[in-house]
Amino acid sequence: MSDNYLKSLYDSGWRIIIILAVLLQVGLIPLDFLFNLRSLSWYKTLDLSISLLFFLDLIINIARYKGIKSQALLKDVYWDTYDSGKYFIADILAILPYAVLFSNPWFQLFRLFKWVRVIRTAHFFQMRNLRFSSRISFGLLILGFFHFTHWLSCIWIWIHGFEPGLSNTDNYVQALYWVVTTLTSVGYGDIVPHGNVEMLFTTLLQILGVGVLALFVASMVGIFTKKNPAEQRFMENIDKLRALIHYHKIPKDLEERISDYFTYEWKQKLGYDESELMETLPYGLKNELQFEFKKNAIKDIPLFECVDDHFIRDIAQYLSPMVLTPGDYLFRVGDAANSMFFVQKGRLEALSADESKQLTILKNGDFMGEIALFKSTTRTATVKSIGYSDLYELQKKEFNKVLKKYPEIAEKLRSKSQSREERYM
Amino acid sequence: MSDNYLKSLYDSGWRIIIILAVLLQVGLIPLDFLFNLRSLSWYKTLDLSISLLFFLDLIINIARYKGIKSQALLKDVYWDTYDSGKYFIADILAILPYAVLFSNPWFQLFRLFKWVRVIRTAHFFQMRNLRFSSRISFGLLILGFFHFTHWLSCIWIWIHGFEPGLSNTDNYVQALYWVVTTLTSVGYGDIVPHGNVEMLFTTLLQILGVGVLALFVASMVGIFTKKNPAEQRFMENIDKLRALIHYHKIPKDLEERISDYFTYEWKQKLGYDESELMETLPYGLKNELQFEFKKNAIKDIPLFECVDDHFIRDIAQYLSPMVLTPGDYLFRVGDAANSMFFVQKGRLEALSADESKQLTILKNGDFMGEIALFKSTTRTATVKSIGYSDLYELQKKEFNKVLKKYPEIAEKLRSKSQSREERYM
Amino acid sequence: MSDNYLKSLYDSGWRIIIILAVLLQVGLIPLDFLFNLRSLSWYKTLDLSISLLFFLDLIINIARYKGIKSQALLKDVYWDTYDSGKYFIADILAILPYAVLFSNPWFQLFRLFKWVRVIRTAHFFQMRNLRFSSRISFGLLILGFFHFTHWLSCIWIWIHGFEPGLSNTDNYVQALYWVVTTLTSVGYGDIVPHGNVEMLFTTLLQILGVGVLALFVASMVGIFTKKNPAEQRFMENIDKLRALIHYHKIPKDLEERISDYFTYEWKQKLGYDESELMETLPYGLKNELQFEFKKNAIKDIPLFECVDDHFIRDIAQYLSPMVLTPGDYLFRVGDAANSMFFVQKGRLEALSADESKQLTILKNGDFMGEIALFKSTTRTATVKSIGYSDLYELQKKEFNKVLKKYPEIAEKLRSKSQSREERYM
Amino acid sequence: MSDNYLKSLYDSGWRIIIILAVLLQVGLIPLDFLFNLRSLSWYKTLDLSISLLFFLDLIINIARYKGIKSQALLKDVYWDTYDSGKYFIADILAILPYAVLFSNPWFQLFRLFKWVRVIRTAHFFQMRNLRFSSRISFGLLILGFFHFTHWLSCIWIWIHGFEPGLSNTDNYVQALYWVVTTLTSVGYGDIVPHGNVEMLFTTLLQILGVGVLALFVASMVGIFTKKNPAEQRFMENIDKLRALIHYHKIPKDLEERISDYFTYEWKQKLGYDESELMETLPYGLKNELQFEFKKNAIKDIPLFECVDDHFIRDIAQYLSPMVLTPGDYLFRVGDAANSMFFVQKGRLEALSADESKQLTILKNGDFMGEIALFKSTTRTATVKSIGYSDLYELQKKEFNKVLKKYPEIAEKLRSKSQSREERYM
Repeated sequence: MSDNYLKSLYDSGWRIIIILAVLLQVGLIPLDFLFNLRSLSWYKTLDLSISLLFFLDLIINIARYKGIKSQALLKDVYWDTYDSGKYFIADILAILPYAVLFSNPWFQLFRLFKWVRVIRTAHFFQMRNLRFSSRISFGLLILGFFHFTHWLSCIWIWIHGFEPGLSNTDNYVQALYWVVTTLTSVGYGDIVPHGNVEMLFTTLLQILGVGVLALFVASMVGIFTKKNPAEQRFMENIDKLRALIHYHKIPKDLEERISDYFTYEWKQKLGYDESELMETLPYGLKNELQFEFKKNAIKDIPLFECVDDHFIRDIAQYLSPMVLTPGDYLFRVGDAANSMFFVQKGRLEALSADESKQLTILKNGDFMGEIALFKSTTRTATVKSIGYSDLYELQKKEFNKVLKKYPEIAEKLRSKSQSREERYM
Repeated sequence: MSDNYLKSLYDSGWRIIIILAVLLQVGLIPLDFLFNLRSLSWYKTLDLSISLLFFLDLIINIARYKGIKSQALLKDVYWDTYDSGKYFIADILAILPYAVLFSNPWFQLFRLFKWVRVIRTAHFFQMRNLRFSSRISFGLLILGFFHFTHWLSCIWIWIHGFEPGLSNTDNYVQALYWVVTTLTSVGYGDIVPHGNVEMLFTTLLQILGVGVLALFVASMVGIFTKKNPAEQRFMENIDKLRALIHYHKIPKDLEERISDYFTYEWKQKLGYDESELMETLPYGLKNELQFEFKKNAIKDIPLFECVDDHFIRDIAQYLSPMVLTPGDYLFRVGDAANSMFFVQKGRLEALSADESKQLTILKNGDFMGEIALFKSTTRTATVKSIGYSDLYELQKKEFNKVLKKYPEIAEKLRSKSQSREERYM
Repeated sequence: MSDNYLKSLYDSGWRIIIILAVLLQVGLIPLDFLFNLRSLSWYKTLDLSISLLFFLDLIINIARYKGIKSQALLKDVYWDTYDSGKYFIADILAILPYAVLFSNPWFQLFRLFKWVRVIRTAHFFQMRNLRFSSRISFGLLILGFFHFTHWLSCIWIWIHGFEPGLSNTDNYVQALYWVVTTLTSVGYGDIVPHGNVEMLFTTLLQILGVGVLALFVASMVGIFTKKNPAEQRFMENIDKLRALIHYHKIPKDLEERISDYFTYEWKQKLGYDESELMETLPYGLKNELQFEFKKNAIKDIPLFECVDDHFIRDIAQYLSPMVLTPGDYLFRVGDAANSMFFVQKGRLEALSADESKQLTILKNGDFMGEIALFKSTTRTATVKSIGYSDLYELQKKEFNKVLKKYPEIAEKLRSKSQSREERYM
Repeated sequence: MSDNYLKSLYDSGWRIIIILAVLLQVGLIPLDFLFNLRSLSWYKTLDLSISLLFFLDLIINIARYKGIKSQALLKDVYWDTYDSGKYFIADILAILPYAVLFSNPWFQLFRLFKWVRVIRTAHFFQMRNLRFSSRISFGLLILGFFHFTHWLSCIWIWIHGFEPGLSNTDNYVQALYWVVTTLTSVGYGDIVPHGNVEMLFTTLLQILGVGVLALFVASMVGIFTKKNPAEQRFMENIDKLRALIHYHKIPKDLEERISDYFTYEWKQKLGYDESELMETLPYGLKNELQFEFKKNAIKDIPLFECVDDHFIRDIAQYLSPMVLTPGDYLFRVGDAANSMFFVQKGRLEALSADESKQLTILKNGDFMGEIALFKSTTRTATVKSIGYSDLYELQKKEFNKVLKKYPEIAEKLRSKSQSREERYM
């Protein structure tokens, strides 16, 4: 894996360099318009360097695209390469060092085509780092808003002209301040447009501003208020409980036990139900995912210590999770028996019929109720949860399917269950 | 319970004291920056007192945390104690009386770590007082908004400097006025920033302001427009009725009867359906909740006067509620009989087959239709609701399960039903 | 009914008079504070008249409340009378002519309690005139916003003092203009607060303004964009169609036929599905509603001309509506026959097996396919819709249930079907 | 079709000319009020020309309406003609050249009735060009907003009077600038109302502005953020995946494979589920749509090359699509066989039982598994997807229904399957 990892690290590094180059370039273009930066040698050098970078990027992209096409897998293809000819043309057009070649600044606008790359690379990073995708959205929004106000500020200076007696920096800060004041509809009125051109520009800016700001704020609020599914489910449950106690008088104690259960469910991340995702997947991927989920839990059960992946893959489908709250009974003496249980986490006590004698304590990795799977019988002990317990249940029907395939595990189970039977039943 | 109650009262009281101390402290810090409060003796005393309070709080929190851990139940743990080490460190850092120890005001910012406690304690109160949780959210929002504008006002004075010829109070009010004018995007323009620093601060404030205000307003509107589930269901029903009369000509009288029914359902809180909450609970809690709901209704039925909780717990699962509107028939002579009914509230009349003779009036606590449960027969009387009636229905199938377990109640029912049969059937 | 109608007309008239009196009173109180209206005789007369009105209203309300209580039905009770003691007290407190009795204007604020009546009476009108309820909401919102700005304007004048050199009207218009400018966050800055009191008031006004305006705008937008269910369904369908043609190339002709069908469905109000409302109703009301819907359609069918309501009530449950688009086949020669059809609207042609011969044209009120209900057979003609057709289908199974109860209609059907059979089959 | 096409082209052209005439007219009316355009000869000529156009439109509309009515189909009727008398009257009232006939400009307001036509024609274009309907909405919104601000600007000049020393253009630009500044609540305050009339107008404008802007921004944001159903489904799936990796540690490789699958699904437009639309259609249209979808896919299968539409219509209902991801097994040696498969796109390999020998490669248009449909057997080869594959599955049960109807295709299949059996099984 380390080779692949290094390759993807280099790849990510390069993409980030290109993004920074694009951002710098896009930020400098309007300043060039205003302050004629083309005449400065550092800007020329920068322009040439960026052209070189863009040229190298083109080469790398072509290579990457060819590699992907030959694989016949569609991986990587979608977000960052030339699946459509127009992106190729955009990359070509952005290559030339326009500031060096032409005295007219307008040619530099061709460079803006490379901006497309920033968005597409950000998408690529989002798809490859889903964990951080909302942070990437956030960064992209901030960057977009910054460039938006930066360009508008420069255009305002261009239309309005430089204020006499103010430095370039002062002029720029004032323009930025005015643009933001207008976009946010604060509109102090200390700086106002004069003449028809400025007034029409301001009119446009206000109409545009309202829309852009609405989109920007809505997106930001969306990112910040997005709740993870477990928290969301927790809050919905609490809302339902609140509605309940609004209409029915239930004891304070029961109310607290229910709200504690919801908290437990949330904190243990049990609140998230993966079945919704499962439904959207084709059979192959669904199976693999289920295996990944329960793999570790199953391996923690001593009974299954040395089994192979095939067995775990099979049994993973049949183990269904359940939760007991403090004091809940798993089963009582005399109940019909048709499933066995594996303790994934928690502590339970096995009791005699009258609950006067504690037979044993069951802890993480223990299993119980297996006796009923070999004979048609009823429970011979009462099992009660001490605190919260997470268990896996295995139904008799499914159990038999698995045992038929894995006789050695069946044997192990049977011997263990007999020894226990003699011990305390 | 009174001992527990006292304990929780003391506990709540202490938490409130700490919250007030934190709020005071957080509000005073920026004022100390501006007006050098450290030089005043009352501020020093206050600073020391708060340190003492915070120290005591640390001790209490540690004790509380230990108590909870030993219980092996997760109660109380999540919202207010050291389940994560970082909260412990935050509490430690906030203890020192920085205003007394250091002449530099910046050290006091460590005290802000205690702000975390306010949020967590508010969460704790919300979880323990679900009935008032929206009021707590409301209070927290107001407090947050107040501190937000207070700090921004102080920062503005710090950047802008004091206006000559104005008292400290005047300066503060003016700054607060300016900050709110900017945040709400009113922007009168009587006070405007001068110089690059002020302009950049204002730019930031405007961008931030838009977002914070959007969040604040959205939260407030959310709190005020949140409807309780019964009212919500009532309004949805009325909307559906309105849509209906938009397309179909139905008699005014029928329209009013339907809207009256919805009103009745709402006012009697029947509109809220608890089954949605039930589904999210594990078996143990679900059972207990159902018992709580129907306990009182069942005990009101004279037939079940002296039964024990076990019986009520069993029968609670099988009683399903139903509503009759004025004039509705419960059953007519000759209908197939397969359930009995208990009147929880309302008045019904039992009539002869041709509805000419009123056999009896059935009132709260009465039951009827029990005869059909002992023999396979049809109804021998017609029963019609006079006003609105709330009933519980008990199906024959479930009824038999319960009777098998409780022969003495079966006997009581049978004898009562026979005596009635002789009376008017 | 005309007696009832007159009574309810008088009742509505009286309620409207009281509402107008309350609105006038509430609007005048702040003006009295500013301009000392109490000293004017017309204001005193008005105050006394309103007291008299309120007194009469109290008497009427008590009478109305008693009437309702004795009816044992809950009709009318909820929205407009003394179901809760606090409304009684509010009505009592609002009675006295405070402007005549006291020189201090503050006592008049007791009159504001009567404002509660406006809201409750508006609710009453909404519940009794569901067809106009959104217009009533609209009016209430406008009134509320007007009174809100009116009071704020008066308070602003009270705080700010009268502008010298301006008439009272000018002062009021200026204050109103300033309040609205601030509430909508336009904030021109031509009028700004001076001094701490005014600044704090403005600060509060801005924070409040943001919230109130958000609520007001959201409510208004809600009222205007509320679509009736049929239009909503039409637009959803069109959206789905648009999505479809985005992904699949389907012939323009088919696209237009589908969009035409949706338009037809909408315009014929078939798009609204009443079953959703039905589900929320208890059995009695549900039955009655279904009867109302199909009553007229069934009576239009010549076969059922002289039947009684009992028959219609029974058959209404079994007739299920269906739509045919132009050119659609209802059935073809040889199809298995297990239902008959009634043409509610439209034109269909019965054709011979090879579709070369038109046997007959079926129009509104005609029925067909009845032969198959008496014998187990297949269709002996092909039936095709010429334009759009609305039909009712009656399944064989349900048909038999109905016929058993109404032998005379069965006989009519059988004779008609035989005569037709001879005609063209 | 070309004749129809030409007709609809002429029709669309005419409608667009009328729309442009209406827009011009509506834009000029307020300018006529301000600048007395009626006295200019070009305006008179324009007014007469527009009257002529409107008259011709009336004639055309009547003809179109008659044509539609006689068709007995409801096509075209709803959006653009005289289905309701009021539109006829509106068209009549808008015909007269008021600017020529009357010196009083107020009469021209009758012309505004024609504005109704713009909205209705836009609706017509939307219904006939669903693909572009959001662009049409966008255009309509922009136009509406432009006319709204244009009229308000003219009204402001009318109330405020011309600024002395400014040209007409300057006056108009200033008014437009002021209106937009107010509507967007920027409110610089460089232009403010003076006097009661202006203040009241501004007050109204602000209240109106808030509402109109909220509607305008909400509509615009709605148009821009509307996602097509496939993209929406893609993003929901990615959200679910993100939630999953938030709670469970799954290998990076599996995460990428799942996200790749979602991307594939989206890009191949498989993400859009047409079944939702199907449900809303009556039987006839549903059938036709399904035929259109699968027609081409089925014709690409060599086995069905020369079949007629009847067969495709029948089989289209039974073919259900499925997707395999790279490496997924379609079936393995020994699996029970009860369906055959057609490769629509992709590459699969048929392998021997131990997967050591590649029997054949299956490509677009190939079919497999057909042997199992003639005998009750198990799979004799293992089939595995190389890349992503789109297949159609045909269940044995449905297959038999089709074969019974088309014996010649059954024969073809049987012979082909036998020859293959001999080849590699």
